Amino acid sequence: MSVPSPTPSDGDDTAQWAANVFFRACASRPVLEHIASKWGALALAALREGPYRFNALRRRVDGVSEKMLSQTLHALERDGMVNRHEHSAIPPRVEYSLTPLGTQVADRLIDVIQLLESALPQITVAQQRYDAARQPAPSEPSE
Amino acid sequence: MSVPSPTPSDGDDTAQWAANVFFRACASRPVLEHIASKWGALALAALREGPYRFNALRRRVDGVSEKMLSQTLHALERDGMVNRHEHSAIPPRVEYSLTPLGTQVADRLIDVIQLLESALPQITVAQQRYDAARQPAPSEPSE
Repeated sequence: MSVPSPTPSDGDDTAQWAANVFFRACASRPVLEHIASKWGALALAALREGPYRFNALRRRVDGVSEKMLSQTLHALERDGMVNRHEHSAIPPRVEYSLTPLGTQVADRLIDVIQLLESALPQITVAQQRYDAARQPAPSEPSE
Repeated sequence: MSVPSPTPSDGDDTAQWAANVFFRACASRPVLEHIASKWGALALAALREGPYRFNALRRRVDGVSEKMLSQTLHALERDGMVNRHEHSAIPPRVEYSLTPLGTQVADRLIDVIQLLESALPQITVAQQRYDAARQPAPSEPSE
């Protein structure tokens, strides 16, 4: 676990001397991998709506397998983005919620998601144009 | 390629009726997968610095394989986020740059990346705490 040790030499207020995700050895790289993944981003965005129990979260993040959601939540919990709270009840009730850092990350991911959702018509046109340009011989008029 | 057809019924200015990335069948889901992936996010963030040729971009996104970068750029080009420009020269020179939509997405991803980088000390503490709590018997004092 090699963490770059910050050695602030002057009043530089950027964090680039401490962590740079472009370098493969930077400890921020695996964290990016956890949140910049389809399931990581969707789980964080869903938890921004409020705490969820595992099965409810799994229904919200449509299509995620039990195993993938479990792995995703463990990684996010380890990175300090998600709290796992076990209520003492019978049967035990486990609830997941965002930490303050997780909330900050989720807000930014939701920005990305909302941009994607609103740009979807434009993206679809780009995809159709790309696919049409790659077809060898357009024998039929495209609709 | 099933695209949800927008049927605006009232003056709702959110795009949620048109695209919802939480549903597995929504066409925005694979797009999220392209940009919310480690290599997609890093390629977009790098291209925000300016146009790159393939090999220079590969050096910038430290650790990406030729195959993965090529796949990533094709997907981003198809989604209308990246332009591929072939300069007529010998040997042919291919340059990649962001579209206006790609620039918007990259700006938001850079927000996420900068947050991660600046929060890395906090994340590292969380990881150490998590790992320590999972060790069966702490026989040595942790440092």
